[in-house]
Amino acid sequence: MKDLFIIKIGGNIIDDETALKSFLADFSSIGGNKILVHGGGKVATELSARLGIETKMVDGRRITDSDTIRVVTMTYAGWLNKSITARLQSLGCNAVGLSGVDGNLIPAVKRPVKDIDYGWVGDVEQEKINAKFLSQLLEGGHTPVIAPVAADGNGNLLNINADTIAQALAQVLGKFFITTLIYCFEKKGLLLDVTDASSVINEIKFNDAEDMKRRGVITNGMVPKVDNAFRALQSGVHSVVMGHAGFIKKMVSQEKGYGTYFKA
Amino acid sequence: MKDLFIIKIGGNIIDDETALKSFLADFSSIGGNKILVHGGGKVATELSARLGIETKMVDGRRITDSDTIRVVTMTYAGWLNKSITARLQSLGCNAVGLSGVDGNLIPAVKRPVKDIDYGWVGDVEQEKINAKFLSQLLEGGHTPVIAPVAADGNGNLLNINADTIAQALAQVLGKFFITTLIYCFEKKGLLLDVTDASSVINEIKFNDAEDMKRRGVITNGMVPKVDNAFRALQSGVHSVVMGHAGFIKKMVSQEKGYGTYFKA
Repeated sequence: MKDLFIIKIGGNIIDDETALKSFLADFSSIGGNKILVHGGGKVATELSARLGIETKMVDGRRITDSDTIRVVTMTYAGWLNKSITARLQSLGCNAVGLSGVDGNLIPAVKRPVKDIDYGWVGDVEQEKINAKFLSQLLEGGHTPVIAPVAADGNGNLLNINADTIAQALAQVLGKFFITTLIYCFEKKGLLLDVTDASSVINEIKFNDAEDMKRRGVITNGMVPKVDNAFRALQSGVHSVVMGHAGFIKKMVSQEKGYGTYFKA
Repeated sequence: MKDLFIIKIGGNIIDDETALKSFLADFSSIGGNKILVHGGGKVATELSARLGIETKMVDGRRITDSDTIRVVTMTYAGWLNKSITARLQSLGCNAVGLSGVDGNLIPAVKRPVKDIDYGWVGDVEQEKINAKFLSQLLEGGHTPVIAPVAADGNGNLLNINADTIAQALAQVLGKFFITTLIYCFEKKGLLLDVTDASSVINEIKFNDAEDMKRRGVITNGMVPKVDNAFRALQSGVHSVVMGHAGFIKKMVSQEKGYGTYFKA
């Protein structure tokens, strides 16, 4: 099996032109099979504000009414996806900008209304992911660049969590590639001491992580990310790494001190 | 060689939900290889107005400043492209929404400034079109849905005329497929008498068209469309048809009285 790197970037890179420029240059230089999954950052919120559409967030998820799914699709699958793709092309990376809609790549279902009606927010139907289409693109020398928008099979677009897309793709493609899933975030890795940016944990095992959650070292928004990382590892993903996008090349080459490696 | 239909739709369909719904159902039912090229309609102008961006048109082309290329990319390659793709998917058509940027499908150059500075408007570099990528998608059972946005090779996005994209794709793919290029517009075909909607010309030959241009029967915006049609025919496209989107199935099956067929 060949190697595959699935790299997820979020707002801390997308909203920072200097960081984005540097990241895209680094990403382009990674050889072999790679997929970029991008979030949206502040662009959708800014466009909503200019259009007089109120932004409502619950637990970090955007409540996505009919106006908002338009804004999300325009900014994520339109401006950001095509800008990133054009810039990667200019750097010699044969990028193909896609959403979950295209080729029915990532089928999704509208999230059922329980306590909260999230609107046009969707959950990935992992077992239906079109791995064949992605494999064909990769074999053809292409680099898929994926925006977190999908469809429900009835012609409706859905706003999807980009972390989840990256994880689901890694699990499905883990059957065909030696897959490394890299989550880029604002820190160099998981920190043993949150007040010390240099206290990066190089390797974390499941039992250690459970212990750190109990002791409150891993808290808040990091809990689902860490849980997702171990779930991916247990589901056929070869390696999962979490670290700063500025060190993406070091994480790809597994240099010590850059990024936290999850071990099953 | 296999058949390929390249169908271009513009604002008169995109801006009319009833017409669009009917067209997408008809388009989905066309068997074999097909590509949909869509324009933008009024959506970009409406979004520009809501954002306080002035729309300037010269000879039917949008002057595309930095704010406008964002709006064009968001609406054409974002909202419209993904909405159409999701709806085709729901109709059983395995659509893949793309722009000229993706896989470097349609390389373009920024239009040089002569009398008018069109801004981020581009002209297609036909000889560099990535026919291989399109052929692979078609062979894989996919239906490319193409938004008229491309890139300049330096990471900049460009606004491209959708008619030209359809023509350029038809010419390039005419080497690999028996290609029929169908331009959908607001009339049933070229009319012998513009005041009589039933006076559709079934077939038009180059010399007849030249004569009709001299006599003022073919005028204004139709002149470049007719010239493009004959240029395509002379460059390896098997058939070129112009007619109303409401009769797309009849045009595909070459039923008489629906659409004007160009003959070299």
